[in-house]
Amino acid sequence: MRVRRPRPAGSCERGHTGGAGAVMAEQVELRVRLVGRTGFISPDGVPFDTEADGGQALAEFAGRACYQSWEKAVPATATNAGFLEHVLTVGHLSVLEHASVTFYLTGISRGAAHELIRHRHFSVSQLSPRAPAQGFVAPADLAADQVERFAAAVDTAGRAYRDLLADLQSDAGDTPGSVVRRKQARQAAAGLVPAAAATALVVTGNYRSWRHFIGTRATDAADVELRTLAVTVLDLLLVEAPHVFADFRISTLPDGSRTAASPLVGEG
Amino acid sequence: MRVRRPRPAGSCERGHTGGAGAVMAEQVELRVRLVGRTGFISPDGVPFDTEADGGQALAEFAGRACYQSWEKAVPATATNAGFLEHVLTVGHLSVLEHASVTFYLTGISRGAAHELIRHRHFSVSQLSPRAPAQGFVAPADLAADQVERFAAAVDTAGRAYRDLLADLQSDAGDTPGSVVRRKQARQAAAGLVPAAAATALVVTGNYRSWRHFIGTRATDAADVELRTLAVTVLDLLLVEAPHVFADFRISTLPDGSRTAASPLVGEG
Amino acid sequence: MRVRRPRPAGSCERGHTGGAGAVMAEQVELRVRLVGRTGFISPDGVPFDTEADGGQALAEFAGRACYQSWEKAVPATATNAGFLEHVLTVGHLSVLEHASVTFYLTGISRGAAHELIRHRHFSVSQLSPRAPAQGFVAPADLAADQVERFAAAVDTAGRAYRDLLADLQSDAGDTPGSVVRRKQARQAAAGLVPAAAATALVVTGNYRSWRHFIGTRATDAADVELRTLAVTVLDLLLVEAPHVFADFRISTLPDGSRTAASPLVGEG
Amino acid sequence: MRVRRPRPAGSCERGHTGGAGAVMAEQVELRVRLVGRTGFISPDGVPFDTEADGGQALAEFAGRACYQSWEKAVPATATNAGFLEHVLTVGHLSVLEHASVTFYLTGISRGAAHELIRHRHFSVSQLSPRAPAQGFVAPADLAADQVERFAAAVDTAGRAYRDLLADLQSDAGDTPGSVVRRKQARQAAAGLVPAAAATALVVTGNYRSWRHFIGTRATDAADVELRTLAVTVLDLLLVEAPHVFADFRISTLPDGSRTAASPLVGEG
Repeated sequence: MRVRRPRPAGSCERGHTGGAGAVMAEQVELRVRLVGRTGFISPDGVPFDTEADGGQALAEFAGRACYQSWEKAVPATATNAGFLEHVLTVGHLSVLEHASVTFYLTGISRGAAHELIRHRHFSVSQLSPRAPAQGFVAPADLAADQVERFAAAVDTAGRAYRDLLADLQSDAGDTPGSVVRRKQARQAAAGLVPAAAATALVVTGNYRSWRHFIGTRATDAADVELRTLAVTVLDLLLVEAPHVFADFRISTLPDGSRTAASPLVGEG
Repeated sequence: MRVRRPRPAGSCERGHTGGAGAVMAEQVELRVRLVGRTGFISPDGVPFDTEADGGQALAEFAGRACYQSWEKAVPATATNAGFLEHVLTVGHLSVLEHASVTFYLTGISRGAAHELIRHRHFSVSQLSPRAPAQGFVAPADLAADQVERFAAAVDTAGRAYRDLLADLQSDAGDTPGSVVRRKQARQAAAGLVPAAAATALVVTGNYRSWRHFIGTRATDAADVELRTLAVTVLDLLLVEAPHVFADFRISTLPDGSRTAASPLVGEG
Repeated sequence: MRVRRPRPAGSCERGHTGGAGAVMAEQVELRVRLVGRTGFISPDGVPFDTEADGGQALAEFAGRACYQSWEKAVPATATNAGFLEHVLTVGHLSVLEHASVTFYLTGISRGAAHELIRHRHFSVSQLSPRAPAQGFVAPADLAADQVERFAAAVDTAGRAYRDLLADLQSDAGDTPGSVVRRKQARQAAAGLVPAAAATALVVTGNYRSWRHFIGTRATDAADVELRTLAVTVLDLLLVEAPHVFADFRISTLPDGSRTAASPLVGEG
Repeated sequence: MRVRRPRPAGSCERGHTGGAGAVMAEQVELRVRLVGRTGFISPDGVPFDTEADGGQALAEFAGRACYQSWEKAVPATATNAGFLEHVLTVGHLSVLEHASVTFYLTGISRGAAHELIRHRHFSVSQLSPRAPAQGFVAPADLAADQVERFAAAVDTAGRAYRDLLADLQSDAGDTPGSVVRRKQARQAAAGLVPAAAATALVVTGNYRSWRHFIGTRATDAADVELRTLAVTVLDLLLVEAPHVFADFRISTLPDGSRTAASPLVGEG
């Protein structure tokens, strides 16, 4: 899912490139792609059946296993949707841990990635800081001329990065042992990369972790880039596992950006 | 997968039942069924392809995303098997966290379940301690006559449990509020259930967690019931994700039980 | 702190012993002792001072470090109590993770210990299941005659345990290799130990974890033994770190047992 | 403990300041101060005594509680040092989780902080990315003239940061609602801050977590800044808890930097 953030009128699209080599100065957009999900295999010898599949079925299976309540005696919880709604209402959230979803994120700033990895229940693989930059992410809420100035500043940083790297790698030469020195050169130059530089992440979380992430990062008070990420993830999860995320309500703020909240998610 | 533990000659199969109601005194066997696994969806716009699917493909994808090394320049790591072998060798184990496997365990003792849930990286849903017992698990290493005595002792405990429960539930009566008192009765009677009573668990772990579990619980020094569980889980994971678990070697001890170890798993 | 649970009139104190060897059949009471706490050392070169010490000072220090706000410009948060109240109100709970408290618990049933260790943020060292039993914990809510019957059933289980153990250890003999067989004998006999058998635990949690534990286990709906533990722990934490736990309100139910809740702790 | 990193001859000390306001362009050095530690209170009624105090005593207490082995029957483990050496040798590492140490880190780059917070067992409070910069951290391994060029590039980034911030805050004005816009301005400008900018962290970990951190980050292969941090932390822990860290051996590499390793720490 490509994200079209609200954008000041007149700002140009991906227009801040400064030449073929100026990779850091290309403005990029957040993109979120679902690359992993849990599948369910109904076990032989257990009289379990439900109308959902995948992670939603597995979560229901786990919940029923706690009481061996395969017979669905209570009408309100006889469907997968009804059962998982009950799970959310009574707070039996551990059954949501059995199913996971993995997203591949690109066009996310290193600053936002830093916040993301503080969510310790996620498993994250991130683009190496020594790898070539992947463009930059412009802050939301900037006017067009401010974006231009921001891009120019990033471009300057990008030039400084490339100059230092070229200089250090030239010193490293081609002698034996230069592999280590070239790696050190990339490491040193990486210190000049700004927080707005884009990175790429593979992030896996179970349903409970994603609910917690959305609950804390999709609120009005959250950083705009993380909020955009959280609501975009929610868009995809509402398709992937609607019975687990349907309590979240998405709203649009006056500035055009979106927020989400659920009456079932408090502070913990 | 049903587990046939080595058994003293002459012991009877499931023969220790003491009547229709004596559920606790039925000897049961460990059974492990795979009920959840990670699926992989290759994202649009990324030149990634591999010969494996599911969690193994996702782990390779995550590993390559760290360097955007989609092109497979190094022959030794150009296959999924080669790439994941390299991951294990260099210890880049975090990429193994993206893929999970869920097992449904029955015929496991409460004592063993207690040890299992100490592995904090697992997500576990367990049969309620207030639910009716599911039979009992006999210790390995007992001679036939010892199993008989063990079963008799469990049967006595089962009778004490049922008598106390009947007594307390009779006191609870059918008045309003008796629902709570009947729940309290089951809770109180649950105190008489022995550690050998069988329970049921849904356990989810990622590849890294399962490797750690097998590495610590499949060794000679481990408790026999957990060792049997660990090797049985390994049997299934060798089918599900052979490139991630093939370094473990299974051996058979003189007593007929099995053990497993890998040169790549040390103490952590 | 010894816990005097509400008890049916006429029940005897620790009166269910069946002789010198009958360790399992001695009724024991929950006891909670604080054995570890965080100390704070104010660092050279930082203009930080506060009127609290220990973990409360460390939590404030960590919170101020996030903004280098050593100067206490806002009167409402200029005291340790005011600062930590603000932390709780805005949900900046990660600063509460820096300070830990360790309790030594005895007189807790294995069943309750099983629930306790499901709180994965705790670090727990537990008495080995192969160690001699430490008495038993009677369920709350039982009438005096019911306690007698419960104790008698535990006593029967204790006898079966001792008989099996003696039998297996006799078989193990004193030959070389008997150390392993004696350990196996204790392991096998341990299967007969009932959930009401008392165990001992050393449990460490940070302030945030203890708040979560109390928030989920001190409610009306919780199991009585865990509720008693949670409220007892709260009693001690109100002395140890009052600024972190003062929002919890303790109430006494009609049956004489206690419960606790805070308006700041929701479901998470 | 101030860290004097090996430094190219002729480099100047803190000499890269570009004026009173140029805080980002001041080169700073890593400093690690111990601000929190676990204290032990020996419980009444337990015949436990040892010659150590604090976290080392608590770890021994927890280990002995698992077998109620207060009597110290085995000479080799009768001392705190002997007991904890045994714990490390047999890998009973969970008892090391009861004791924690907190460090206050300054002069650490945001890039290194990003790596640090990936250690999920740590609790971390970090300087807000919107707070004023705290100088910058120069990469190790640079020649004097390279450091000069690095500092100049950081200085340029600092100027761009201040210009954009002034511009955006000027736009924000002093109207009602400008508090939010000023916060947004700081957030946007923060995107220009380079990875080498210094931050401050309060980091808490238990003994086991610190051992794992040192084991993975003090090796030859590790990033130099994190390696320097890991060895510096080890220096302090060897004073704080020598019985828990004495197996680590510190070596000096040809380039003058240090590394540490233990035969007891493998890959996990």
